[in-house]
Amino acid sequence: MSPKKRFVVGLDIGGTKILAGVVDVNGKIYGTAKNKTLAHEGFDASMTRIIAVIHDAIKDAGITLEKIDAIGVGSPGPLDIRNGIVIETPNLGWKNAPLKARIETAFNKPVKVDNDVNTGLLGESVYGAGKGINDVIGLFVGTGLGGGIIVNGSLLHGFNQNAGELGHVVIKADGARCGCGHKGHLEAYVSKTAIERQIRKAIAKGKPCSLTEKLMDHVGPLKSSWLAKAYNAGDPVIKKAIDRSARYLGYGIASFINILNPEMVILGGGVVEALQEKYIDQVIRVTQANIFPVAFQNVKIIPAALGDNAGLLGASVLACQALKK
Amino acid sequence: MSPKKRFVVGLDIGGTKILAGVVDVNGKIYGTAKNKTLAHEGFDASMTRIIAVIHDAIKDAGITLEKIDAIGVGSPGPLDIRNGIVIETPNLGWKNAPLKARIETAFNKPVKVDNDVNTGLLGESVYGAGKGINDVIGLFVGTGLGGGIIVNGSLLHGFNQNAGELGHVVIKADGARCGCGHKGHLEAYVSKTAIERQIRKAIAKGKPCSLTEKLMDHVGPLKSSWLAKAYNAGDPVIKKAIDRSARYLGYGIASFINILNPEMVILGGGVVEALQEKYIDQVIRVTQANIFPVAFQNVKIIPAALGDNAGLLGASVLACQALKK
Repeated sequence: MSPKKRFVVGLDIGGTKILAGVVDVNGKIYGTAKNKTLAHEGFDASMTRIIAVIHDAIKDAGITLEKIDAIGVGSPGPLDIRNGIVIETPNLGWKNAPLKARIETAFNKPVKVDNDVNTGLLGESVYGAGKGINDVIGLFVGTGLGGGIIVNGSLLHGFNQNAGELGHVVIKADGARCGCGHKGHLEAYVSKTAIERQIRKAIAKGKPCSLTEKLMDHVGPLKSSWLAKAYNAGDPVIKKAIDRSARYLGYGIASFINILNPEMVILGGGVVEALQEKYIDQVIRVTQANIFPVAFQNVKIIPAALGDNAGLLGASVLACQALKK
Repeated sequence: MSPKKRFVVGLDIGGTKILAGVVDVNGKIYGTAKNKTLAHEGFDASMTRIIAVIHDAIKDAGITLEKIDAIGVGSPGPLDIRNGIVIETPNLGWKNAPLKARIETAFNKPVKVDNDVNTGLLGESVYGAGKGINDVIGLFVGTGLGGGIIVNGSLLHGFNQNAGELGHVVIKADGARCGCGHKGHLEAYVSKTAIERQIRKAIAKGKPCSLTEKLMDHVGPLKSSWLAKAYNAGDPVIKKAIDRSARYLGYGIASFINILNPEMVILGGGVVEALQEKYIDQVIRVTQANIFPVAFQNVKIIPAALGDNAGLLGASVLACQALKK
């Protein structure tokens, strides 16, 4: 490694863990560290852990803080992106948390913050599935349905910095209630929460399902790996619920392509990772059946490629952007 | 007028008429001319009329062709925007019509072509309702539901130049059949065609309606002015059909704001022009009820301001862009 080589830190704050990575401007990771978020201990306690995990990653890379030029951060939102403030987040319980200012003070480096879905998509679009593609949308099927939009190589934030909420579009007017309170949103048909609701409905109707016991006993959320196992074993209740999610996601993507006409749609999140092509192939089929051929020509719908590193790599891109300002 | 002053021509090709205007770089119109499209006579005949109307507008402005720097054109589509070719258009019956090349040859000036909805929105965003606003979407409620998107001051075209098809998004999965053949699209709930379908359904059920006679006798399309008159007179069938259109448009706009988070939504087209605030106020109310307050904060939903001149003014902006290349 050249003694002149410079680095940035990418930080990915999740509901349960914080990941930090020391990354160069080409997306090569030189060191990483991980810590529990323990958000219930409050923002100050989490900040102490965030600062520690950044130092740990720098140590793991075998370099000194002096060689770090900037820090990028992906955090659950909604955020005030310009000022790097976490407005509030159900996952972490933070309110008006001055994330950017606190990290800047602790390290005396430029810091740039964006929401975790955006940083994940940014990582995929620069270093992963969307490398070299300038117009990309990302959809992440987990507990909710996260979305992000990249236009001309830049994340689309919009007037109130709230663009890219692709889970919160009306796909069935007057339809199912979404977690956000509104009706008929795509998230209410596609997310793992929606899939679970369909499964529980079928079980309540007395339909046999291989996950009945697990769902009745389990206190936490349904695991995507259980879904994949039951799906692969041919469980009809699970199959129907998953296929429904894929179908609605296809309707949504057809709409997004008619609106934004991206070159690529990247699919990620627990459900996609667990089911892979069994899910994605259906999404592609439904999208294709619901779109003008001219708009869909050569548009790729593909799975995310970076796994757990997407967030910290995307955050490292933010850090590089912070330097250019 | 300074002898050094330079101009461009903006051309707006419609299904029935062609409008041309001589415009300066500030959107001031110095001369106009109008001609019938008579598209059924074929592309060559229309081209002759197009060339004549451009010369007429230049004459009307009291200048010579030498003072024109470029020509911008708005045309019904779908288009190959890069090459300025009308791929095909049900309105005009043209197929693979080399609009840009023919006008360039006739006038020996740079020519830039875009679809008519985009040029209308561009005119409004540069000189009309959206003056000074960089992130705007436009929705035009007529026979269909036209849409366009401006991001960072530029029209969004996307990978296959097909972005902005805001009428063709799924708003009710498995719902009403759209003119494009797909199901549940916004256009199938909002357009004048959709309004007419609702009215005809009510009439078929025996509901009294002040437009029954007109609708039964009439061979051409329903006029927006009839709708406005019947609405203002309190006709319950008309009111229900119009209110339904406004409600769905509100759902759509809530979705578009969650996706793109523009600063402004411009509403135009015959239905909006005829009903004005009686329609727009409902659209705003439904949008507001279906969106996160943070995304909607200070977002304006307002009527188009330029009337028939929006298209030629937007085309004049295209012409100015053609010069910058």
